[in-house]
Amino acid sequence: MESTGVSAELYAEVLQYYARQMQALDAGKVEEYAATFTEDAVFGHTPGREPARTRAGILSDLYQVRERFTVDPQQRRHMFTMVDVERLGDGRLRSTCYALVLTTRPGDGPELVRSCVVRDVLVREDGRLRNQERLVDHDGF
Amino acid sequence: MESTGVSAELYAEVLQYYARQMQALDAGKVEEYAATFTEDAVFGHTPGREPARTRAGILSDLYQVRERFTVDPQQRRHMFTMVDVERLGDGRLRSTCYALVLTTRPGDGPELVRSCVVRDVLVREDGRLRNQERLVDHDGF
Amino acid sequence: MESTGVSAELYAEVLQYYARQMQALDAGKVEEYAATFTEDAVFGHTPGREPARTRAGILSDLYQVRERFTVDPQQRRHMFTMVDVERLGDGRLRSTCYALVLTTRPGDGPELVRSCVVRDVLVREDGRLRNQERLVDHDGF
Repeated sequence: MESTGVSAELYAEVLQYYARQMQALDAGKVEEYAATFTEDAVFGHTPGREPARTRAGILSDLYQVRERFTVDPQQRRHMFTMVDVERLGDGRLRSTCYALVLTTRPGDGPELVRSCVVRDVLVREDGRLRNQERLVDHDGF
Repeated sequence: MESTGVSAELYAEVLQYYARQMQALDAGKVEEYAATFTEDAVFGHTPGREPARTRAGILSDLYQVRERFTVDPQQRRHMFTMVDVERLGDGRLRSTCYALVLTTRPGDGPELVRSCVVRDVLVREDGRLRNQERLVDHDGF
Repeated sequence: MESTGVSAELYAEVLQYYARQMQALDAGKVEEYAATFTEDAVFGHTPGREPARTRAGILSDLYQVRERFTVDPQQRRHMFTMVDVERLGDGRLRSTCYALVLTTRPGDGPELVRSCVVRDVLVREDGRLRNQERLVDHDGF
């Protein structure tokens, strides 16, 4: 418990960034989600698989996931909580949070899919936050 | 991802408003919950049913729900996450968030009830926030 | 709904305090978690059991829980949401929030463990927040 965290302005910006970013993904707007990553970003989303690299590579993985959901329609929700943000020395931000993934199939109730820790490196480009890195650790692996 | 959101002051106010509002509802304080809506508010809470209109109409719906829980006692919890707030042109706020509804019956563990998207229009009355509109989309419908 | 809450700076500090505090606990760093309590703190965590008293007493309880998990390995996650903070007259803070406890065993998906209301009294020591009191109400008891 070394740090006392970042300013309220920055913290609120990160929370709102996450809300928009993940609402876009859950709405199937994969291009909008991919655009929240930098061109050279690294996104490790699945255990035992190489991280996706570059925005184009990330988009390619997102299309694959979306394709899978066309044969098994469901509404996924990513809920980020317990967001901890700290400044790295170089102007970048380290953000570590919990992600709870839920899904609801038509006519059913919600189900828990997985519990993860999300480890982000955020940078500012053209005045707004973007993910330069996102490494997701899945609980139970 | 057009906007970068609202100020930290406003964002923290909305989060604390939601915490108090939903803790009141979950504690069975339906009058206190109803009082967070404006007199002319619209509250669409159930798929396939007309939204409740006016604070009195909302309170009437709340009494019905509370009545149901007297024969099937349970502790409901509404958890709002991923809150995205933006200013509408006219001074009102648009807030969009996820709601996870859980319930615990005596002697049991918690169960997931439903996953929703909450679409609010918030206004300021006498210095404090109120819901002028709340439209709840249930996942799976 | 009397109060409109605390300032954004203080609210963001509390949220970040909770994120660090509970991420430490969930990572098994029980000494770090215990150090977030004051020396004379009271921590009521289990229904029907006397609260732990003093930091040493809290640590003793934490070691017991950690011991249990060595024979039944699992990754617990504590997700605090709906955080409501208010100033007590004496400079201390009252914070009331929901805690959802989940666990994931190796090779399994996440399970809900319990839903709680956390009632904290927070104080500032050496410039940083600490728990002087934490009373946890478990739903369903």
